Amino acid sequence: MAKKISRQTAVFDDLIYIKSYASIAGKEESEGPLGALFDEISEDPYFGQETWEQGESAFIRAAVKNVLRKASLEPHDIDTILAGDLLNQCVGSTFGIKEFNIPFIGIYGACCTMSEGLMLGSMLIDGGFGSNIIAATSSHFAAAERQFRFPMHYGGVRTPTAQWTCTASGAVILTEDKSDIGVKGFTTGKIVDFDVKDASNMGAAMAPAAADTIKTFLDDTGMKPSDFDAIVTGDLGTVGQKLLFELLEAENIDIKNQHKDCGMMIFDRNKQDVHAGGSGCGCAASVLCAYFLPKLQSGEMKNILFCATGALMSTTISQQGGTIPGISHAVWLTDVRSQR
Amino acid sequence: MAKKISRQTAVFDDLIYIKSYASIAGKEESEGPLGALFDEISEDPYFGQETWEQGESAFIRAAVKNVLRKASLEPHDIDTILAGDLLNQCVGSTFGIKEFNIPFIGIYGACCTMSEGLMLGSMLIDGGFGSNIIAATSSHFAAAERQFRFPMHYGGVRTPTAQWTCTASGAVILTEDKSDIGVKGFTTGKIVDFDVKDASNMGAAMAPAAADTIKTFLDDTGMKPSDFDAIVTGDLGTVGQKLLFELLEAENIDIKNQHKDCGMMIFDRNKQDVHAGGSGCGCAASVLCAYFLPKLQSGEMKNILFCATGALMSTTISQQGGTIPGISHAVWLTDVRSQR
Repeated sequence: MAKKISRQTAVFDDLIYIKSYASIAGKEESEGPLGALFDEISEDPYFGQETWEQGESAFIRAAVKNVLRKASLEPHDIDTILAGDLLNQCVGSTFGIKEFNIPFIGIYGACCTMSEGLMLGSMLIDGGFGSNIIAATSSHFAAAERQFRFPMHYGGVRTPTAQWTCTASGAVILTEDKSDIGVKGFTTGKIVDFDVKDASNMGAAMAPAAADTIKTFLDDTGMKPSDFDAIVTGDLGTVGQKLLFELLEAENIDIKNQHKDCGMMIFDRNKQDVHAGGSGCGCAASVLCAYFLPKLQSGEMKNILFCATGALMSTTISQQGGTIPGISHAVWLTDVRSQR
Repeated sequence: MAKKISRQTAVFDDLIYIKSYASIAGKEESEGPLGALFDEISEDPYFGQETWEQGESAFIRAAVKNVLRKASLEPHDIDTILAGDLLNQCVGSTFGIKEFNIPFIGIYGACCTMSEGLMLGSMLIDGGFGSNIIAATSSHFAAAERQFRFPMHYGGVRTPTAQWTCTASGAVILTEDKSDIGVKGFTTGKIVDFDVKDASNMGAAMAPAAADTIKTFLDDTGMKPSDFDAIVTGDLGTVGQKLLFELLEAENIDIKNQHKDCGMMIFDRNKQDVHAGGSGCGCAASVLCAYFLPKLQSGEMKNILFCATGALMSTTISQQGGTIPGISHAVWLTDVRSQR
């Protein structure tokens, strides 16, 4: 059973376990510092499909196939899949996973979808609503760019604060069966709106939500940043990281020694033309599955606070002069052996 | 605790209760047969805002305000709000609820969002993750029409199979505190794709999913259609209803005496030019809150199987020649006094 310790935060008395995890990424991501760590690479952004959107679906389909294979499970062994993505009406997920015939609960958290899926999936397993639950998400540079910003062939110049939506997907199987990695707790985020309106400055839109959620988690659990080997945000990039540090410093919280941002890790900003860093649901999801979960598995890290970060942006609202609110859910991941 | 009786279906040993429910609808809906039953009517589709999308947000905001008022609760009394809608990136919900500052879990189930919210919210309360949880959703005729089909001023002729997206919202507060209405169980749906490609024939796209979920629920629980006063679908309309009956008859299931479709109930198709009926997330949600939950409250109905139905459609995919898969989640709602 879980111990709900505040309105937003719960800690599990019995850990929820992670059975397997898988990542897949595109060409640009494969050329970054983490390139060797992904389970699969597709240099073809279409991934053998006819359109970028269908390609995104093929990426999440491959991630789910890989995560099933690594757990030696079949689709019918999975009770529920929790998935969503950035494409309008979350069609990356719908068309990516429909062939598996797994009971499906659609979620929307923009780029914090992996946090949301891990959090919800853990609650469902803790409540006895499933033995094996998949959390998955994806994003695709070209599909996102033409949906949210400009047609690809327009050749628009990207601003310095812009980020590069990752072509990537990650999937995790949560389970009640003991393993080396577990979910220990979480904090559900609130929508935080700092009145950012620049669709090329997602980092600034999301940093306030990350700060709010990290502070809430630490306050609620009484933990310190130094209790974690890493406090991980999804895709704040360089601009968002600076703002996150400032916002937390104003609350007397210093996470500089622990902070890692998946958007800053996935590309080499000196060599790759990605401006402020990577972004997209697939960024945090693939870096979690390719880098952080293996670090917990090996015992190199003991505790991670994984706070994927979402910009609740829509072109419809941006064109009407609206803001871009942010949200972040925090998931406490732990090396199970360190808990004994 | 819940008793999970199959991969898709669970029945609660301890009921999850409904503390309050609220509905709001627009002008066309107010002129239909259920017009007098909604808690609030806004004849202005902008609801005092500048755009239709902002108007939709104002509708869900009003539904949440009403449901809080009816429960004598404040936003800070709510542990989590589960919400989503049809607008790209679910911005109807994001901008509608952000001012409440309630921990938010974004969901996407197209027009089955209210089923999804009730199902997830019930699991969260059963698991001890909250005492009061709101499930809410909305839709807006003009915002949906210009997003999914044609610009409003184009004056396109609607086909006979087309449905009318309701301008409406519904919100429910799920709770652990005893009340007269409860959630007794649910069946999580799968994505069902019958290869329908006509964005003006949502009923045909969704009926196979509804049939699959209803059959699964009845098989898993061993219940009969006659155990229910009503088996309610969201927005199949006349076209979808016919297909639903055919699909279930092929499985030797006859629900003709129990079937009610919110899309067929909300408008008077003889007097109102809505073609096959109403649709949209707000259709099932507002009819549930205006008609069915009061029938359980009064004791006139004892058991309802509420199966909102979603068409997982996106213009991006339709323009690429893709299909429109459907999904439906079933929620068993009961008059608590009849359980004693």
